[in-house]
Amino acid sequence: MMLVALEFLGLVAFAASGALAAVRARLDVFGVIVLGLTTALGGGIIRDVLLGVHPPTTLRTWPYLTAGAVAAILVFAFHPQVARLRRPMLVADAIGLGLFATSGTGVALALDVPVYTACLIGMTTGIGGGAIRDLLVGEIPLVLRREIYALAALLGAVLVGVGHLADLPATPVLAVASGVVVAVRLIALWRQWHAPVARET
Amino acid sequence: MMLVALEFLGLVAFAASGALAAVRARLDVFGVIVLGLTTALGGGIIRDVLLGVHPPTTLRTWPYLTAGAVAAILVFAFHPQVARLRRPMLVADAIGLGLFATSGTGVALALDVPVYTACLIGMTTGIGGGAIRDLLVGEIPLVLRREIYALAALLGAVLVGVGHLADLPATPVLAVASGVVVAVRLIALWRQWHAPVARET
Amino acid sequence: MMLVALEFLGLVAFAASGALAAVRARLDVFGVIVLGLTTALGGGIIRDVLLGVHPPTTLRTWPYLTAGAVAAILVFAFHPQVARLRRPMLVADAIGLGLFATSGTGVALALDVPVYTACLIGMTTGIGGGAIRDLLVGEIPLVLRREIYALAALLGAVLVGVGHLADLPATPVLAVASGVVVAVRLIALWRQWHAPVARET
Repeated sequence: MMLVALEFLGLVAFAASGALAAVRARLDVFGVIVLGLTTALGGGIIRDVLLGVHPPTTLRTWPYLTAGAVAAILVFAFHPQVARLRRPMLVADAIGLGLFATSGTGVALALDVPVYTACLIGMTTGIGGGAIRDLLVGEIPLVLRREIYALAALLGAVLVGVGHLADLPATPVLAVASGVVVAVRLIALWRQWHAPVARET
Repeated sequence: MMLVALEFLGLVAFAASGALAAVRARLDVFGVIVLGLTTALGGGIIRDVLLGVHPPTTLRTWPYLTAGAVAAILVFAFHPQVARLRRPMLVADAIGLGLFATSGTGVALALDVPVYTACLIGMTTGIGGGAIRDLLVGEIPLVLRREIYALAALLGAVLVGVGHLADLPATPVLAVASGVVVAVRLIALWRQWHAPVARET
Repeated sequence: MMLVALEFLGLVAFAASGALAAVRARLDVFGVIVLGLTTALGGGIIRDVLLGVHPPTTLRTWPYLTAGAVAAILVFAFHPQVARLRRPMLVADAIGLGLFATSGTGVALALDVPVYTACLIGMTTGIGGGAIRDLLVGEIPLVLRREIYALAALLGAVLVGVGHLADLPATPVLAVASGVVVAVRLIALWRQWHAPVARET
């Protein structure tokens, strides 16, 4: 129940980030909705295409579609205020990342794929929507540059995988792993952690 | 029969638009063919990947492949003339959009997915090829900026969904819905309809 | 056995080319690994998504993942030296292209798709990883501009298809077809073959 509420929050945060990117790229209201939904649902669609779940769950769960579209429309209407909400948005985005990465891993494990495959698919579920968003507005995906983003998602996925191997109950493992992703991501933002960049030639 | 002829026209129009974009990006003849085929077949491939139809229908229907390749080669050979055919191209493109969006919805409904899911997949079938085309030549997909494009596709898909719910016979519904897409798209072009853009901050 | 060794070499070459592109785009070490793996595994993932093999083979073969990640890390650490290895890299990349295009065709044929469909999927397997790499760093995919690249992949795929129709034994056909791809690609580089570009308007 708590998890469902948090998953919704994550989905809404992703939809808002996509809609905000669309507003910045001067798209019209329909482009804002399309980009918001694509960002919110993209990770789950990639996960289901990789796992062979047809049609993708996110496309046949209407509350997801409604929540994403409403979030995008609100951003379109109130975008100056939303853009000022930078800190809450980053928190919500981190929650979305954590929940999508860990639940994606859980969905993959439930379909009996190898554990390390499930972790990779879970990480992709977390970062996929944002990557598509950046590609569509013509930018190098931020996830490729903000290392602690993808690394945090992978860490959460690996925790779920380890919990699965240790036969721990799934719900608390998901909750703890999501929390770790959020904590790592927010501490990285707060402390401005960066991974090394290759030295200039 | 009529529908098959129109579907061919739509496919050829999409192939020509991809080939024209490739010529403008200074690609060579093989790049022109690849981009033309990708544009023509992309929407159907996305549809089949989402629905779990393997391998995608468009990749195993050789008349489609032949027609798309021939259209791309003709554009390569005669592109100044084709570029001048702006108006007929837009009409053909609108017909392709209408037929792909409505037939995509029909294919999804035949596989028993929920109606709103089928509408989303149908819309994606209509706009997918053009979005891939724009991504590959490094542009923000036009569909995100020309709202009446995606909106027209969605409208056609919804009409097919409503017809399905009302248990109407499929062929006339597809024909009417395609016609509505074409009409809305062309009137929007003619009247220069635009959806609102967010106000500047 | 020989083929497995060469397939590994191809995978490593693709991972290195992705990692090198990431270093040039100033990505950090994690972005370098992600882009290296995406380039090395992308073609096989597209192939398996199109064919309905779930989850994709490349995501559940840990030696592939390990080899790709190690190659990317080595490029990150020694990239000035690797960048100087331009010639050996192009040879390894050509070997990868040949093996991926021909083995992709073979995998598709084993699943009983039509021969020309298998050739298209094989060509896509060979060129897919590089196309994703270029998209992610914001460039028009090189494959669209270096015609003899995609054309060589298609040629190898067609040879495998012809061998299949003629009922020849698979392994020697794969070996010969891969060799032809490598030869055509390297001769094209050496002789600077170009396909025609459309004349200016």
